[in-house]
Amino acid sequence: MVKKSAATREAIVAACLESLREDGYARTSARSIARRGGFGQALIYYHFEDLGALLLAALENASTDRLRRYREELAEVATVTELAARLAELYREDVAVGHVKAVQEVVAGVSASPERGRRVMDLLQPWHELAEAVIQKLVAGTAFAPLVPAGDAAFAALALYMGMETMTHLDGDRAPGERLLEALRAVAPIADTIRESSRT
Amino acid sequence: MVKKSAATREAIVAACLESLREDGYARTSARSIARRGGFGQALIYYHFEDLGALLLAALENASTDRLRRYREELAEVATVTELAARLAELYREDVAVGHVKAVQEVVAGVSASPERGRRVMDLLQPWHELAEAVIQKLVAGTAFAPLVPAGDAAFAALALYMGMETMTHLDGDRAPGERLLEALRAVAPIADTIRESSRT
Repeated sequence: MVKKSAATREAIVAACLESLREDGYARTSARSIARRGGFGQALIYYHFEDLGALLLAALENASTDRLRRYREELAEVATVTELAARLAELYREDVAVGHVKAVQEVVAGVSASPERGRRVMDLLQPWHELAEAVIQKLVAGTAFAPLVPAGDAAFAALALYMGMETMTHLDGDRAPGERLLEALRAVAPIADTIRESSRT
Repeated sequence: MVKKSAATREAIVAACLESLREDGYARTSARSIARRGGFGQALIYYHFEDLGALLLAALENASTDRLRRYREELAEVATVTELAARLAELYREDVAVGHVKAVQEVVAGVSASPERGRRVMDLLQPWHELAEAVIQKLVAGTAFAPLVPAGDAAFAALALYMGMETMTHLDGDRAPGERLLEALRAVAPIADTIRESSRT
């Protein structure tokens, strides 16, 4: 009997991410995952209740991975200028790693199931907390602090990223997202000047 | 033989929108649409090539409808404060009409098909142009005009709206989106002050 090892589970999750990235959500199946991973389909059902459970595990894995990098890079950010520079770098990594595409595929795919939708929202929770902490730090002591609750602005940041990825996904054009990050870098020094001059 | 009338076509599209709104994308089928509309399934295939073509027609119908209202309301907007007030009103309408939910359902559902994805992006084009025109007017003559291309900012506005709807859809909670529009209203007078003081 096959040993139910963590290493095997990880290999299945990796194969699932690869299939999402390369084949897309609609063509990701137990078969496509087994083929990508070079193992039999039965192994999947030995480790996961069903394909939905595996997709969520893949989403969780990709999310945890990227969240660690975002936390590292954003921990010391104290200005909008720094933030814009770090985000551009992190986004380049997101694209290179290919996890964003996988995540987008799953988010689009699971949105039909209310229960899975809530599980996806649970995965977004730590991202919301990270964004909120960064925004909190940037507006603290300025005229904007009482006007824009950091929690709402963090929701906006997450929504913007998700919408950007949905649109990129719809037409396969990554340029608008990249130009947006450029624009953020261009406007960041002004934002910092405004922040500083509005200190209360 | 049934007459291939525009009225019948419209009734089918209306039944499709109702099914998307009430049953969700995953449970919208020729059967659910026929039941909602009180006609036979054959009528659908007499007017539309397949269910995908009907879904796109429904999306186009909902989009055109709302676009007309947005154009009306935003035509005369000259300040961020006015914009924020109008957007809050339009968003309330979006929710009441229920088209947003239908659109979100189709966007999530079609994202698996590259060809349909591009058709959805085509529908977004006039929205992009409207957002671009509004932003252009608001930044014209200020220090922000050369820094933030209106086209990129318009892309961000669309992405934000779509991401907001995706997240609302995932957990069924409309409150964060509404709070965000509140926050925009709160910060709008400051934004207008900054705009005015940065006129070049």
